Amino acid sequence: MNKRNCFIGQSGGPTAAINASLAGVIYECIDCGEYENVYGMVNGIKGLIEGKFLDLKELFTDERNIRKLRQSPAMYLGSCRYKLPTHEEDPQTYETLFNYFEEHNITDFFYIGGNDSMDTVAKLSAYASIIQSPIRFVGVPKTIDNDLKGTDHTPGFGSAAKYVATSMLEIAYDSAIYKLNSVTIVEIMGRNAGWLTAAAALARNENNDAPDLIYLPEVPFSKEKFLADIKKVFETKRSVIIAVSEGLKDEKGQYLDADSEFQQKDAFGHVIHSGTGKVLENLVQQAFRCKVRSIELNVLQRCAMHIASAVDNDESFAIGREAVKAAMDGKTGVMMAFVRESDEPYTIGFEAKDVSEIANVEQKIPVEWINEDHNDVTEELYTYLRPLIQGEVDLEYENGIPAYMNVDHLK
Amino acid sequence: MNKRNCFIGQSGGPTAAINASLAGVIYECIDCGEYENVYGMVNGIKGLIEGKFLDLKELFTDERNIRKLRQSPAMYLGSCRYKLPTHEEDPQTYETLFNYFEEHNITDFFYIGGNDSMDTVAKLSAYASIIQSPIRFVGVPKTIDNDLKGTDHTPGFGSAAKYVATSMLEIAYDSAIYKLNSVTIVEIMGRNAGWLTAAAALARNENNDAPDLIYLPEVPFSKEKFLADIKKVFETKRSVIIAVSEGLKDEKGQYLDADSEFQQKDAFGHVIHSGTGKVLENLVQQAFRCKVRSIELNVLQRCAMHIASAVDNDESFAIGREAVKAAMDGKTGVMMAFVRESDEPYTIGFEAKDVSEIANVEQKIPVEWINEDHNDVTEELYTYLRPLIQGEVDLEYENGIPAYMNVDHLK
Repeated sequence: MNKRNCFIGQSGGPTAAINASLAGVIYECIDCGEYENVYGMVNGIKGLIEGKFLDLKELFTDERNIRKLRQSPAMYLGSCRYKLPTHEEDPQTYETLFNYFEEHNITDFFYIGGNDSMDTVAKLSAYASIIQSPIRFVGVPKTIDNDLKGTDHTPGFGSAAKYVATSMLEIAYDSAIYKLNSVTIVEIMGRNAGWLTAAAALARNENNDAPDLIYLPEVPFSKEKFLADIKKVFETKRSVIIAVSEGLKDEKGQYLDADSEFQQKDAFGHVIHSGTGKVLENLVQQAFRCKVRSIELNVLQRCAMHIASAVDNDESFAIGREAVKAAMDGKTGVMMAFVRESDEPYTIGFEAKDVSEIANVEQKIPVEWINEDHNDVTEELYTYLRPLIQGEVDLEYENGIPAYMNVDHLK
Repeated sequence: MNKRNCFIGQSGGPTAAINASLAGVIYECIDCGEYENVYGMVNGIKGLIEGKFLDLKELFTDERNIRKLRQSPAMYLGSCRYKLPTHEEDPQTYETLFNYFEEHNITDFFYIGGNDSMDTVAKLSAYASIIQSPIRFVGVPKTIDNDLKGTDHTPGFGSAAKYVATSMLEIAYDSAIYKLNSVTIVEIMGRNAGWLTAAAALARNENNDAPDLIYLPEVPFSKEKFLADIKKVFETKRSVIIAVSEGLKDEKGQYLDADSEFQQKDAFGHVIHSGTGKVLENLVQQAFRCKVRSIELNVLQRCAMHIASAVDNDESFAIGREAVKAAMDGKTGVMMAFVRESDEPYTIGFEAKDVSEIANVEQKIPVEWINEDHNDVTEELYTYLRPLIQGEVDLEYENGIPAYMNVDHLK
């Protein structure tokens, strides 16, 4: 009698933990015994509009597959970059979707993603309210950028932060071996919010003081100050290690890698966006004439499951389960959020927040958490970040590489 | 009476396993009970000429420190890039060094490194023979490039290969999520030998067929063929993943990233060496007008201890111990080598080889191990590579990041 049916989707950029949240949703749907069908949209809401979905219940009734899914990076269900139009702009798409929902007796809709995905949840739940549909729409946050409002932090961020901190530590060891002056610039993702770049500070311990300098997109970047900062570090150290956000902007608000002074062209005259790290590498090279290297951590910071945070993986799984409980409690138009109860010991609770107040807002680092010199983070930011990278995931390996889920359905 | 004293040094580029070899040498020196003093040169032979060395025996009598050293990346003793002149060219340097040896009653000299380091061992042992010094000079190989002659493979290569294979797997998952055509080019270290690039093939398993194409520096690279290869993969797949060596050369033997057609200049007219991946990214972008990304694995492939191969770590430790045994057996002017006894089960033995026949020779991939199309590896190369990445190192973590040795003595 009481049988429920749901659609689950993933959207936006991948993380090492978004499949843990998917596993949490599926696990709870199966475990609670209330769901007859658990469907997964392939390539998010865009795929669903085209009628693409999978039956997830059978495959994941085997708990070994739940575990394997929790330990697989990127997105099992695939993704889309798609801004759902409003129902006033495009009533046809809403009719198509809600016809699908009716056809499959859908009671609940779970969507795991970042800002744009929460916008989708907000629009669908608002429309459901207008047409008096009883379907519950629940968002589950994820983003390595940690820039969602209303939640203490986002699933996926802790694993990316652990990758960044560990890589930064290893790069510092790598840079220490020669007896010569060198500058190493590590470019980290985060176009507008500097959370992930700030996580580089977690590489510091009693044996390592790198990164020596940290530059975040929340405060304006000055090239003159940057070179002066490096000069100062050189007074006491040979190897200078710097963490920079890809999204650094100058005093005029212009991205560094859009700066015409450093803009590069190939032989055909095409502009090459070389990236903030490369721009700064050239700047430092010209100023100091020493060994300079820039390293772009690139997509590995969002997909390196092999160095995922156990806290992040556990929480991402748990918040997926909580989303199902919220739907069964009758909640709709909400995003599940983490509420920090305590830093030490670190404890977290869950809450369902009004998604319309969260979608399309970027949560940046408070300037009080950036030092006065604008080249480092404060102790408060450390305290906030440290619990999120704790613990290692006990990954299964086969033939020397991690054993991840098959995703042939995305081909 | 029988007391021995030794110098140990490290040289060349870092790896995730060179400290395991250092730990093996130190462990055996202490364990055998024959050594009164175990000294470590700081910054290799160059540091020793300047009189810089450490007493290692006290610190590493504690086996917990041996374990921690085995699990620390880069080079505990620091490195140098220094080509020792011949004794004819510079008798003074040899006199300085051999005076040090006499002063400290040195019986054995262990040097862990690549080609240049083996050249140092060859020169010092040849000089010792001329002046009838009884000191034994033993080389221990290391390089992520796997390009040393006389040994089945080199310590450090397996860990780099495991990092490359795992990263390639994770990049493939990351690239699979969108429903659009894309090309991802991963640039891997190895200027003249393609072993590490070939290791990308180890990412393939029943769930993953990437990389789709592999380009090695041992065979000439043709841009036309490259674009035709990609076009062919696009016939059956949306996401094309390509592994390329940084050292690709065209039919005329010119490095791709030195190609004037693609050479980039900044606004000051300085040439920017953008790297092979970037050159190919631009080429593919212009040919296919699809999403193209190039990823440079950069220094992480040589220092990512957190995804080291247990086989590599164990063997690197063992070959360090074997070097001490060889010295005690009276061997000098030798490099310790791995001899493969069997692929399956994989077993390895050790042998001391004449270092003068090894130094300054580059061991490349045999062309028979590259497919006819020059865009992939053969089954023989798989079989050779697979055992080297097996097993994971049970790393200690503190506060969410790996616990590595203090290297303040390198500051």
